[in-house]
Amino acid sequence: CQIKYVGCRQYFVDPDDTVCQKIVVHKDGPRGNHFRRAGPRQRVYFEPDEVHACIVTCGGLCPGLNTVIREIVCGLSDMYGVTKILGIQGGYRGFYARNTIDLTPKSVNDIHKRGGTILGSSRGGHDTMKIVDSIQYRGINQVYVIGGDGSQRGAGVIFEEVRKRGLKVAVAGIPKTIDNDIPVIDKSFGFDSAVEEAQRAINAAHVEAGSADNGIGLVKLMGRYSGFIAHYATLASRDVDCCLIPESPFYLEGEGGLFKYIEKRLKENGHMVIVVAEGAGQKLIAENMKEMGQDASGNALLLDVGLWLSQKINEHFKKNKTTINLKYIDPTYMIRAIPSNASDNVYCTLLAHSVVHGAMAGYTGFTVGQVNGRHCYIPFYRITEKQNKVSITDRMWARLLSSTNQPSFLSKQDVDDAKVEDERTAKLLDGSPSNPKVEDKVASSNSNGVK
Amino acid sequence: CQIKYVGCRQYFVDPDDTVCQKIVVHKDGPRGNHFRRAGPRQRVYFEPDEVHACIVTCGGLCPGLNTVIREIVCGLSDMYGVTKILGIQGGYRGFYARNTIDLTPKSVNDIHKRGGTILGSSRGGHDTMKIVDSIQYRGINQVYVIGGDGSQRGAGVIFEEVRKRGLKVAVAGIPKTIDNDIPVIDKSFGFDSAVEEAQRAINAAHVEAGSADNGIGLVKLMGRYSGFIAHYATLASRDVDCCLIPESPFYLEGEGGLFKYIEKRLKENGHMVIVVAEGAGQKLIAENMKEMGQDASGNALLLDVGLWLSQKINEHFKKNKTTINLKYIDPTYMIRAIPSNASDNVYCTLLAHSVVHGAMAGYTGFTVGQVNGRHCYIPFYRITEKQNKVSITDRMWARLLSSTNQPSFLSKQDVDDAKVEDERTAKLLDGSPSNPKVEDKVASSNSNGVK
Amino acid sequence: CQIKYVGCRQYFVDPDDTVCQKIVVHKDGPRGNHFRRAGPRQRVYFEPDEVHACIVTCGGLCPGLNTVIREIVCGLSDMYGVTKILGIQGGYRGFYARNTIDLTPKSVNDIHKRGGTILGSSRGGHDTMKIVDSIQYRGINQVYVIGGDGSQRGAGVIFEEVRKRGLKVAVAGIPKTIDNDIPVIDKSFGFDSAVEEAQRAINAAHVEAGSADNGIGLVKLMGRYSGFIAHYATLASRDVDCCLIPESPFYLEGEGGLFKYIEKRLKENGHMVIVVAEGAGQKLIAENMKEMGQDASGNALLLDVGLWLSQKINEHFKKNKTTINLKYIDPTYMIRAIPSNASDNVYCTLLAHSVVHGAMAGYTGFTVGQVNGRHCYIPFYRITEKQNKVSITDRMWARLLSSTNQPSFLSKQDVDDAKVEDERTAKLLDGSPSNPKVEDKVASSNSNGVK
Amino acid sequence: CQIKYVGCRQYFVDPDDTVCQKIVVHKDGPRGNHFRRAGPRQRVYFEPDEVHACIVTCGGLCPGLNTVIREIVCGLSDMYGVTKILGIQGGYRGFYARNTIDLTPKSVNDIHKRGGTILGSSRGGHDTMKIVDSIQYRGINQVYVIGGDGSQRGAGVIFEEVRKRGLKVAVAGIPKTIDNDIPVIDKSFGFDSAVEEAQRAINAAHVEAGSADNGIGLVKLMGRYSGFIAHYATLASRDVDCCLIPESPFYLEGEGGLFKYIEKRLKENGHMVIVVAEGAGQKLIAENMKEMGQDASGNALLLDVGLWLSQKINEHFKKNKTTINLKYIDPTYMIRAIPSNASDNVYCTLLAHSVVHGAMAGYTGFTVGQVNGRHCYIPFYRITEKQNKVSITDRMWARLLSSTNQPSFLSKQDVDDAKVEDERTAKLLDGSPSNPKVEDKVASSNSNGVK
Repeated sequence: CQIKYVGCRQYFVDPDDTVCQKIVVHKDGPRGNHFRRAGPRQRVYFEPDEVHACIVTCGGLCPGLNTVIREIVCGLSDMYGVTKILGIQGGYRGFYARNTIDLTPKSVNDIHKRGGTILGSSRGGHDTMKIVDSIQYRGINQVYVIGGDGSQRGAGVIFEEVRKRGLKVAVAGIPKTIDNDIPVIDKSFGFDSAVEEAQRAINAAHVEAGSADNGIGLVKLMGRYSGFIAHYATLASRDVDCCLIPESPFYLEGEGGLFKYIEKRLKENGHMVIVVAEGAGQKLIAENMKEMGQDASGNALLLDVGLWLSQKINEHFKKNKTTINLKYIDPTYMIRAIPSNASDNVYCTLLAHSVVHGAMAGYTGFTVGQVNGRHCYIPFYRITEKQNKVSITDRMWARLLSSTNQPSFLSKQDVDDAKVEDERTAKLLDGSPSNPKVEDKVASSNSNGVK
Repeated sequence: CQIKYVGCRQYFVDPDDTVCQKIVVHKDGPRGNHFRRAGPRQRVYFEPDEVHACIVTCGGLCPGLNTVIREIVCGLSDMYGVTKILGIQGGYRGFYARNTIDLTPKSVNDIHKRGGTILGSSRGGHDTMKIVDSIQYRGINQVYVIGGDGSQRGAGVIFEEVRKRGLKVAVAGIPKTIDNDIPVIDKSFGFDSAVEEAQRAINAAHVEAGSADNGIGLVKLMGRYSGFIAHYATLASRDVDCCLIPESPFYLEGEGGLFKYIEKRLKENGHMVIVVAEGAGQKLIAENMKEMGQDASGNALLLDVGLWLSQKINEHFKKNKTTINLKYIDPTYMIRAIPSNASDNVYCTLLAHSVVHGAMAGYTGFTVGQVNGRHCYIPFYRITEKQNKVSITDRMWARLLSSTNQPSFLSKQDVDDAKVEDERTAKLLDGSPSNPKVEDKVASSNSNGVK
Repeated sequence: CQIKYVGCRQYFVDPDDTVCQKIVVHKDGPRGNHFRRAGPRQRVYFEPDEVHACIVTCGGLCPGLNTVIREIVCGLSDMYGVTKILGIQGGYRGFYARNTIDLTPKSVNDIHKRGGTILGSSRGGHDTMKIVDSIQYRGINQVYVIGGDGSQRGAGVIFEEVRKRGLKVAVAGIPKTIDNDIPVIDKSFGFDSAVEEAQRAINAAHVEAGSADNGIGLVKLMGRYSGFIAHYATLASRDVDCCLIPESPFYLEGEGGLFKYIEKRLKENGHMVIVVAEGAGQKLIAENMKEMGQDASGNALLLDVGLWLSQKINEHFKKNKTTINLKYIDPTYMIRAIPSNASDNVYCTLLAHSVVHGAMAGYTGFTVGQVNGRHCYIPFYRITEKQNKVSITDRMWARLLSSTNQPSFLSKQDVDDAKVEDERTAKLLDGSPSNPKVEDKVASSNSNGVK
Repeated sequence: CQIKYVGCRQYFVDPDDTVCQKIVVHKDGPRGNHFRRAGPRQRVYFEPDEVHACIVTCGGLCPGLNTVIREIVCGLSDMYGVTKILGIQGGYRGFYARNTIDLTPKSVNDIHKRGGTILGSSRGGHDTMKIVDSIQYRGINQVYVIGGDGSQRGAGVIFEEVRKRGLKVAVAGIPKTIDNDIPVIDKSFGFDSAVEEAQRAINAAHVEAGSADNGIGLVKLMGRYSGFIAHYATLASRDVDCCLIPESPFYLEGEGGLFKYIEKRLKENGHMVIVVAEGAGQKLIAENMKEMGQDASGNALLLDVGLWLSQKINEHFKKNKTTINLKYIDPTYMIRAIPSNASDNVYCTLLAHSVVHGAMAGYTGFTVGQVNGRHCYIPFYRITEKQNKVSITDRMWARLLSSTNQPSFLSKQDVDDAKVEDERTAKLLDGSPSNPKVEDKVASSNSNGVK
């Protein structure tokens, strides 16, 4: 079995199945590694009336969770005639600590119009042995895990344990991260909806700022390790004067610092809007706390970059005897809890159908995702080994800088370092020399228009 | 100059510019034709203070028009320092029949939050000589045309005439089609917003249908020649029982026909929702009219597929002595007139910046678009020579069929014919043997996450 | 029993109950007739565990139907401990032709977030004998009818038949009319939501009109006999140049006519928006059809004032060789089907609780409504004997005329006639020189601000 | 001049005008004091071409500010032909410290679709002498002040100074308070919009709570001294389990306390939603801080009832070793900054037209408002002498308690005290046994339905 990833024995529910190997057709060629394209297979491994599927949602809320649940249920039912589908309640610990509920096309019919997850969710609670015991005890043979990188890693561990015990169980994941910080895949579901909803908060900040003398609207958006939501919400809004993300360190004082820029914008325009990702400036905050003799860990409230930045800005202008009006908005929960928008609904449907086709065909140990416009199956480890980050050396970030006119906060050295890091990352990620280059060839096939 | 498309003398404002040729680096290789990647160039052809740009919007409304206008103005001004930008009012005829307005970053600052176009628009009115006279007379040297395939063809003609007169004028287009029926490009701006807004109408139809005995909600959506909006709105909603598009002919009577399916759904579920694209069933309507001795052309109202279908369904059930409650909704103007959503705002911004970079670099005779995830420059003729269509043999349409459970209305012969046609099209489009195949290799590079 | 309306034997479930008379305290005084104030009574007539309630929704959709259903169920359950509540499906005919469903606080918990009615609805189907047979047969002793004036009249007939048969059944109504055309009460539920949603259509019309040369946006809103929605939607929008309602006849040709006004607005402003209530101009249309030798009844499509007006305006300008761009929007079903907004949710809750308190106290033959800011019980006949109309001689209509600057279409004679009619109506309505009073003092303090 | 309030010399721009007295027709009768009905007068005091009006907005944002500005400008212009209208920027201090802008119907045409105030606003800055100097210096003769009770008090002081200097200047107010805490009037503009928008936050809290184990959603809403927004938002939502307002003190520990109730709801339902008005529990917080040896004034963050309550609840359950998931949402700025909804747009229009009619007729020293359904003129001092409060002994609060099932937190003694206070207040407010009456008969017919 030469195929590195999906498709070999390792990723088949029955590793001894000889047909499995026959359907393996792609090899690891000179142009890099490939994932198996998602979709219905001619050979279905599970008999529909033998299938006993379960679905679990883990981690924080994200628009589209209910749509994915709905479409796994409807996909299993409508496309394959599966009737036994369990909902595990309250995340991983629901396998051993809570009741389950039966899921039917009728019971999930309208859930995609609601935010949150009808199954409930939680962080942690991953006790591999208890979970696999529960799977075994209940006779479950398809496990669908909707969750972030931690949960996907957990699914990987379940997959290993299932294999060790020789169970014929497909373990499949649908990656969930509102922050879009999962690598390999083009984007994560719920991201579009989150960027859309973030506009409300930015609009409010803009109105508040614009109605006050020296008004500053400060909006904190999600993004612990990557600033995609802040980045795209800023590009979409056109009302933002400064966007701060974890990937691009910033500083407050001195030339090229944030304070100088704020002073400049207030002078020019009378008001301004700042968007900050929750993970931005963490190093700066920690240093700042230390200087002030405070123990950061003891003051979680001030580690909140939004509150911290509010305080710093207010202090700065108080010192300068300038009256400002800073309004701080944290819309996190209001964004997470919305139902998914139309484009995410379509995306969730495709992901759910892909994962169902994969599991029914007998694949296991994989997650689904769109890679370069195509839906495919990806081994768990590939999406958990690193995080997707905004590249501050590429064109999208340059577009943002040119649209906000904010300082880059970068020295030449920083840029060079970032480039080296980006390249190193790209290599790791691809197992191939480099990424597509700027003025790259773009092939012109586009038979279906929208992907 | 071996390059077939953009980049050669033909597509440069000054065909005698020798530097032009130096920056040509890509050739027409074995893997098909390529378009030049969009983006800022090291060499800027126009001196910013010499630029005299104008913007015109043509054809029907589409969400995002104002965002594109805003971003061309802001892009020219912020990125290049251009100050002379004219708005041509009321479409092509505005060049010679109406006043112009000056556009500044300040005057366009908030327009992206409004639907429609601040410049006004109109169909037709394309008098090439008068337009180029006006361009020459006013000393305009950059022309930005935002419009559909007809308008892009018009822009091509202007480009030819400009060339003939030896004017140093860049003529560039941004393709606009709410229907997503422009080929080559991944999707057109405004499409996402339209699909999103269409959900309201579908929801209303669903509520009306569900609250009545034998309730039928019928929604007509845009799509004269291609059914993308109907297709995606159906996939996004999950409340639709039947989606009719121009690409997939249907019939009313007999086994496998629409009436039988309606009867079945009403029996099973008590109500149903039908989405029909405005261009669906045109041949059927024409035949039907002829049979009834009516001249279709004399009765435009009945050529409206929504009204026609309403009447046919009502007649059918009246004949069968079944009481039904059909509610017909035509949300066309309510969809077209909305402001663009966040994801379209980002897309419009990228398109606008791309076109500005192209024109400033001295390219001409091109339109911009995203092709396979990359923004690039495309010669006018390539996007006007044919229309983008929903492929009824590919997986996306199959997904729709599986989600609605509607009949395919197709005989085996139809499917085979469609496949042949799709392949023929693909070849024409690509100038290369074939399109990516179903279980294709999917390269795993994804350094920026969201494209 | 001197009390004319509610409170006397006639309006009590048990006409022989002597306590009934004791709790009657208000008399028909010199200041006009009074309605009994709604609210919980010290004496509850029905034992909670004896109650067998049913709810039926009749007629067209209106935002808030589900909220009223929910709050009757929750009110009966939470406030009185009632457990047997039936939902009659599909309107009046559901009493004898359809199944019923059990309603519990749990089953109705989220329904107020959905438009339409979970019970289904229909017009007509009122077979008194069969309905009362069904009530008797099922042992129902509380009947809640949510419906328009026809349905309230029907409820009145049921009430008479119930009385005739000597059944101890409370028959109570909640008036439903999106048009706000029910008299006596301050406003009907759903009206606010409808006016709010109508803004979308008006906005779209405004955008379409403003983006075209000589653009005319024409929006048809609900209002068969009264133009309240058109009136308030126009006042709320500020984008409307002309509002046509049934109460104010208009004409097309000549000085002071609609065409002249349109010409004037297009000349001044380049575009305009017209809002027309569905019942406006019916007489004009009928006359016009007759002149043209057409039988109006045979052409329902043209009796649609929106389509008719579109055609007339287009013909007029074609004759005058002026190109106009008329866009016609009919958002009726999209408005009716929305869920109720916050203010209607509060109003529906109060209505539902009022009706529950009334029925539990043993009142019958009444409907509930807010009169001059107070919730009270009103005999059926009082709200069905006439219709509420926009008074074109009062200040609200004057405000509209001053805000749109439209012609009044009225001669001095018309105004005088309208005044006489308004006064006559007021008298008829009251059966007394002054108007109905709510039993408590109304013109009193306002210590809590909002009612 | 026997009339106590508006209409006598005191409230006329020219106190010596004899016509003023002739138009006084209503006296202080046995049924209480009356306010003059708002509306156009036959006699206009100011010549339109002599009018030099100015508008100023003061205090925090409130939906509808721009609508009121727009309608004062359009009312003055369209109804009276006034052309000189100044916008004072940045609140009261704008009279002497900032530039003014000219306001025309064209410049304000679309502003009602935006939140905030185009004039800018600020708190304080009320230097009477400088302001009246500026009025005198600029030749302003109509001053429109849109602001809360502090600003109305300020307007009253300006009115006194203007009178003292013998200036012929009308000083008029439009009361603005998103909290609805201004007495006498039925409700304040923007309140409806705020309650509507608050639903988003409550929905998000509900989704978050419902998706977690022992999930608690806590939403802080506006209302420093009165809890109307929390009250009505709770009634409108039906998802709230507990509503805490300033008027109803609560306690945390022990029987009947908040913690017990939370424990009960979590046990019954698994999750719950709490809405708290920002001014609730202030006394409790202060006491609690004192006990803990903290100086409340030094820790503004913890005086925030939302953060304080979050901390207390978390501590309580940590102590009890119960894992809960509390999500705290503060949507304040996102609510304040929205544009007004349709019903507020109508209300703002009526207020603006009323105030224009009043000033044009020569009245001064008044504010406008709807009292018992009628628009009238009210002397400044009447709306600033006390605050409007939720009456916790009346039926609306009882309705809330019955809908949430929350504890009342009240002993019998508390209820009695509250009643006495309510009565005392009512008397104080009126200065007479009964309450203020609008000059026309209020308790009268309702021929037009909606007021």
